[in-house]
Amino acid sequence: MTRLRLLTAGESHGRGLVGIIEGIPANLSISADYINQQLVRRQKGYGRGGRMKIESDRVEIISGVRWGRTLGSPVALYIENRDWQNWQKGMSVSEEDAQSIEPVVRPRPGHADLAGIIKYAQQDIRNVLERSSARETAMRVALGAVVRRMLDEFGISIGSFVTSVGGEVFQVDTSVLKPKDLLALYSQAEGSEVRCPSADVTSKMKEEIDRAKEGGYSLGGRFVVFATGVPPGLGSHIQWDRRLDGRVAQALMSIQAIKAVSIGEGFEMATSRGSEVMDEMVVEGSFSLKNIKRKTNHAGGIEGGITNGMPVVVKASMKPIPTQRKPLRSVDLATGSYVEAAYERSDICAVAAASVVAEAMLALVIGDALLEKFGGDSIEETKRNLESFLKSL
Amino acid sequence: MTRLRLLTAGESHGRGLVGIIEGIPANLSISADYINQQLVRRQKGYGRGGRMKIESDRVEIISGVRWGRTLGSPVALYIENRDWQNWQKGMSVSEEDAQSIEPVVRPRPGHADLAGIIKYAQQDIRNVLERSSARETAMRVALGAVVRRMLDEFGISIGSFVTSVGGEVFQVDTSVLKPKDLLALYSQAEGSEVRCPSADVTSKMKEEIDRAKEGGYSLGGRFVVFATGVPPGLGSHIQWDRRLDGRVAQALMSIQAIKAVSIGEGFEMATSRGSEVMDEMVVEGSFSLKNIKRKTNHAGGIEGGITNGMPVVVKASMKPIPTQRKPLRSVDLATGSYVEAAYERSDICAVAAASVVAEAMLALVIGDALLEKFGGDSIEETKRNLESFLKSL
Amino acid sequence: MTRLRLLTAGESHGRGLVGIIEGIPANLSISADYINQQLVRRQKGYGRGGRMKIESDRVEIISGVRWGRTLGSPVALYIENRDWQNWQKGMSVSEEDAQSIEPVVRPRPGHADLAGIIKYAQQDIRNVLERSSARETAMRVALGAVVRRMLDEFGISIGSFVTSVGGEVFQVDTSVLKPKDLLALYSQAEGSEVRCPSADVTSKMKEEIDRAKEGGYSLGGRFVVFATGVPPGLGSHIQWDRRLDGRVAQALMSIQAIKAVSIGEGFEMATSRGSEVMDEMVVEGSFSLKNIKRKTNHAGGIEGGITNGMPVVVKASMKPIPTQRKPLRSVDLATGSYVEAAYERSDICAVAAASVVAEAMLALVIGDALLEKFGGDSIEETKRNLESFLKSL
Amino acid sequence: MTRLRLLTAGESHGRGLVGIIEGIPANLSISADYINQQLVRRQKGYGRGGRMKIESDRVEIISGVRWGRTLGSPVALYIENRDWQNWQKGMSVSEEDAQSIEPVVRPRPGHADLAGIIKYAQQDIRNVLERSSARETAMRVALGAVVRRMLDEFGISIGSFVTSVGGEVFQVDTSVLKPKDLLALYSQAEGSEVRCPSADVTSKMKEEIDRAKEGGYSLGGRFVVFATGVPPGLGSHIQWDRRLDGRVAQALMSIQAIKAVSIGEGFEMATSRGSEVMDEMVVEGSFSLKNIKRKTNHAGGIEGGITNGMPVVVKASMKPIPTQRKPLRSVDLATGSYVEAAYERSDICAVAAASVVAEAMLALVIGDALLEKFGGDSIEETKRNLESFLKSL
Repeated sequence: MTRLRLLTAGESHGRGLVGIIEGIPANLSISADYINQQLVRRQKGYGRGGRMKIESDRVEIISGVRWGRTLGSPVALYIENRDWQNWQKGMSVSEEDAQSIEPVVRPRPGHADLAGIIKYAQQDIRNVLERSSARETAMRVALGAVVRRMLDEFGISIGSFVTSVGGEVFQVDTSVLKPKDLLALYSQAEGSEVRCPSADVTSKMKEEIDRAKEGGYSLGGRFVVFATGVPPGLGSHIQWDRRLDGRVAQALMSIQAIKAVSIGEGFEMATSRGSEVMDEMVVEGSFSLKNIKRKTNHAGGIEGGITNGMPVVVKASMKPIPTQRKPLRSVDLATGSYVEAAYERSDICAVAAASVVAEAMLALVIGDALLEKFGGDSIEETKRNLESFLKSL
Repeated sequence: MTRLRLLTAGESHGRGLVGIIEGIPANLSISADYINQQLVRRQKGYGRGGRMKIESDRVEIISGVRWGRTLGSPVALYIENRDWQNWQKGMSVSEEDAQSIEPVVRPRPGHADLAGIIKYAQQDIRNVLERSSARETAMRVALGAVVRRMLDEFGISIGSFVTSVGGEVFQVDTSVLKPKDLLALYSQAEGSEVRCPSADVTSKMKEEIDRAKEGGYSLGGRFVVFATGVPPGLGSHIQWDRRLDGRVAQALMSIQAIKAVSIGEGFEMATSRGSEVMDEMVVEGSFSLKNIKRKTNHAGGIEGGITNGMPVVVKASMKPIPTQRKPLRSVDLATGSYVEAAYERSDICAVAAASVVAEAMLALVIGDALLEKFGGDSIEETKRNLESFLKSL
Repeated sequence: MTRLRLLTAGESHGRGLVGIIEGIPANLSISADYINQQLVRRQKGYGRGGRMKIESDRVEIISGVRWGRTLGSPVALYIENRDWQNWQKGMSVSEEDAQSIEPVVRPRPGHADLAGIIKYAQQDIRNVLERSSARETAMRVALGAVVRRMLDEFGISIGSFVTSVGGEVFQVDTSVLKPKDLLALYSQAEGSEVRCPSADVTSKMKEEIDRAKEGGYSLGGRFVVFATGVPPGLGSHIQWDRRLDGRVAQALMSIQAIKAVSIGEGFEMATSRGSEVMDEMVVEGSFSLKNIKRKTNHAGGIEGGITNGMPVVVKASMKPIPTQRKPLRSVDLATGSYVEAAYERSDICAVAAASVVAEAMLALVIGDALLEKFGGDSIEETKRNLESFLKSL
Repeated sequence: MTRLRLLTAGESHGRGLVGIIEGIPANLSISADYINQQLVRRQKGYGRGGRMKIESDRVEIISGVRWGRTLGSPVALYIENRDWQNWQKGMSVSEEDAQSIEPVVRPRPGHADLAGIIKYAQQDIRNVLERSSARETAMRVALGAVVRRMLDEFGISIGSFVTSVGGEVFQVDTSVLKPKDLLALYSQAEGSEVRCPSADVTSKMKEEIDRAKEGGYSLGGRFVVFATGVPPGLGSHIQWDRRLDGRVAQALMSIQAIKAVSIGEGFEMATSRGSEVMDEMVVEGSFSLKNIKRKTNHAGGIEGGITNGMPVVVKASMKPIPTQRKPLRSVDLATGSYVEAAYERSDICAVAAASVVAEAMLALVIGDALLEKFGGDSIEETKRNLESFLKSL
């Protein structure tokens, strides 16, 4: 990202999560309530572990906003950890509290545990897992919410819906979906405990999760995340790292347990004929560049690394959460003997939550690309620039 | 990337391609011949169009190397376009030659054509397609070859093989492949015109390509790209954009026509139970951190955004090349009427070439992460640092 | 900077200042007390305004540290504003409190006031001055203190002393100063209310400040900031933006009211003969690369953008604080008529404070360059790499 | 820089210099002739060594330009080294030519020589000096010329003039100079062999250089570099590394032998009273934000890290060129004994050349900041955005 800069910080059971985002134009209306709505969405989902009940995240805006509007200065957010009181010694910053809780020494396959202690020369796996935990995505969602608020001003909407959990699949051909179709599926998903648009499939997914819970194993799944109303011309073909598809792929793949990303029908197209999957051009209304539309959207709204005016549609695959009740074989780092991997309270399935995090990441990437093209230190300036660009087409 | 910086430049039918890479440690042995071997690999492949015969790319090392060794200064490479003589007027930098060839006005679906002229306020699509063309990947391969040479010094090998072309599939479960298995598949693929390890499937793929050629349509496919010998500890879990999986995803998704990327068995894991796809830990030899190994490699060598010492394995899906002989509907930008999209000489299938480009991109990302962790302004220094790290485990 | 990333946030009268720094190796001992000592140093100084008494900054470490040692994860710091209770409405983030205090409409020459409201499309200058205020340097000092702690581990010391306030000058030829001389001057400066090593000149400077206070005007000055124990080889000549002198210049020039920066005797050398200002080489002890030393240090420890093993010595000039009691002519933005510029409580002279901020900025740049060369995700690893490098010389 | 990216490459006696700049908007008129004019300016100057006669640099535009206009794609430039034929063996990239010339083993004080071989683990100082040489600034000037051409389109002019050589000084108070005054001084300087606006002082400076030549020593000096027509609002106060003054300082300090940089009257202001050096505000014409002007320009056009609409004025000090005929004491790296430092043919005084390089660097920083604020992928779009911003004030 070149216009937005952000850093997040915070351990899973530390005092709280901190995030700073720089580059938000001035004069954007924003409130803690707006951000909190997104945090609530992230915490929902059938099959989440007990911790979600403890948390109920609430953001505090520390800086960058005055009287309900952004100042152009960096926006700092803080989310206090609600169970911090139970961890004040165990996660204390003070040397006085050293060794107040037992170290974690049984690395869990599929987590950063082993690679992390090797990299950072640690003995206690807690010193890694506290940061590698998906807990940190709460702050990504909060920062993403600020950008999402900005995108609202430009008529850009972000949404997502879950298409599979374990073996249960919600079939959908995204290449034929219009913006209103995507938004309708999103809206339906918001009413589902697994964020699946179909009530029927929702029931089956919940049953699958129940079975997994009983069996002591975890489940992964897939989801679609999209943006509608995106103007053409974001991203660029001129250098590999300015392609928007690459940036989207990085942003989504960076979410814990996401292991595959596809732009539009990208995965499926690999086995199709070229003649079947191209998005032919039609003119809607009188001829002008902006009236050239596509009948289909196999490309997921990005051609040559640049948005083409169609909805940006991305699919992601999530592996089953690597922590599961049914033990996995590991090695005790203190003794070198075989043991069961550590088990920290965990979710059975977090696909719904991941889809909400993915929305935040997509918002960040699209928002950055929008500001990259249209500049603008205030919302008014950015709007003027976007409007005069669209008018020029 | 944080240690390596690179920029490429050059139009498809311009004078040539230029690339600069900065951050290569001093004292690395390198030659134009070594780089040329990689350029040759990129140009092969059954189903490539006529242009590949024209080209036969050869690199010139302009700077950064003296007497066969890198200096630590930026390495600049140049690949002359072999058919430049036919384009001297049409792609001239001089205003005098303006309008010497006809503009391209029929945008091709699936290319940067339409989005590009909208973004950059162009009338002639050639001003976009000359840069969006996959021709530029020749320079990525050349720069990647420099890094690949560096990785050789650290015992890191990069390879790839094609697993599907159109409907023809080479079945392989990458989760059970050891380094030697991967390297054997790579070696076999090098002998195949479609870069598929199996002679049988190679035949079928070639037939599929023949049928496509006859039918006037193009084909996509899938491939595996991998790195063996990668030390644990590259990448990081501590911030979303430092995760190696995200960086790999960006690098591969940035290749023309690549539309889906999966780390390890990432796509398949989404429908599996957690208990089936975790890479359990075993100790090989006497107990030490570096002797903790995995029996399987579903994770593709990356856990929590950090390499875990297993081979880094990535899968990519390529859409059919959007240019095909069988015409696609487009709109004439000069008249606004429906027309067939422009047809520039093109490949039927370029999956083999894309897999070679993917190797270069993976080399760049791994090389950057290696230097990020081990620093080092000379090869000797970097080796010392890596060795003392491994010894400390 | 390429290894350390940092963002700061916070308005001058907002709730507090927030900072995140990423890239600090794991296992560094650090405490809030250590950081607070640096914050105290920044707040001292003869001629500071009333606000310094209110504040008494204290940092809270929110993340990245456990049981007294860094984790390798981002370190987040928070400094609460002590007079926040007086500004809860005026600087509230909530729209409900809008217009609860009067806008600032008389831009002050020499501040960001006018340029800032133009850039960010604001009507109330407070929306700019709250962030442009030097108040934000408290967080720079806090983040710099973390890096300073790291530099301690490598035997690198940072210090500074004031050489002029208004017309009063402490004469010193830095080209002949050895590390111990610099540290002695620093130590003497720590005992002076104006951070000047000489008791005599301190008295005169204080008198100068008294006169200025009486006269209603402000004063600038100059200081030296340095680092001793810096290994050779930090920074690079190979690309303009990797030169350490350029990075140091940016870091110091970015401090409020700093308007000139000189590396070593850089300003003075412009009028000297080449034969007078070169730092000739001598061998101390038996011959080896690391025993080649310089008799003088006109270069300020940086040659060709690379540290040469001599102390890094930098001089900075600070303009008089643009806010002064004696009114400056301005324009009322609400009415367009001439008025006196707004007067917010301010310092007469802040050169002492600026020198402390400069230490923090120098620590950040040197720390980044150290990590760039020696890599290292833990203090132990970085030390190993540095030691083996020095041994190789 | 955030919008423009550039890399340069090339050794002083290598085949040639290569540069790539990315981010130049499309549709900018540009020609090799335009760039060559700047290259010629850099090569002039009384007191330059013999090499300047050999060279007569000429740029070739390799990519990013078609029919006289930029494409939006990266612009690659090439400057062949004219005496390459004499160095084909000595600077060959091929291992075959190893040891074809003697190594350089006597490090020159004041150059990157010693620090460079330490950093990059070299034995032959040539492997460092070939890149650290100011020869590489030819490519900076070429890339800067492209940006300069862009700034022309926005009414922004860049210029410079020399104010001292050795002890000879051209007195000027930049705080009272209007744009037309600056441009007049620049114009006069263009007619002087030392780039000094005064014919009288020019004569004295030339005599000073003659004396130095005779005496075998080198000379430094000072110059002013400026930009007129810069709109208000470039740069930002919101984060230390987004301040334009810091970025300017880095860019200028990164020029070989530049050791001090001052924004406006930054150095002088340190000893002035606040009341003497503030740039008070006046309204010219009817009241509006854009009609608020300053009577003076002590600030050098930047307040709070943001341009204020006044000319950006920067002063730089250059040390005497460290290579001089009169020998400096050094150490033979092969034997460890005291020797005279190596002497490569060199200039007596290069202040005039450095001032031309400084123009290029200032153009790059201002151009980047302009694009950062106004976005724009084409010149037309950027102009629209700038104009609507100015209209809004």
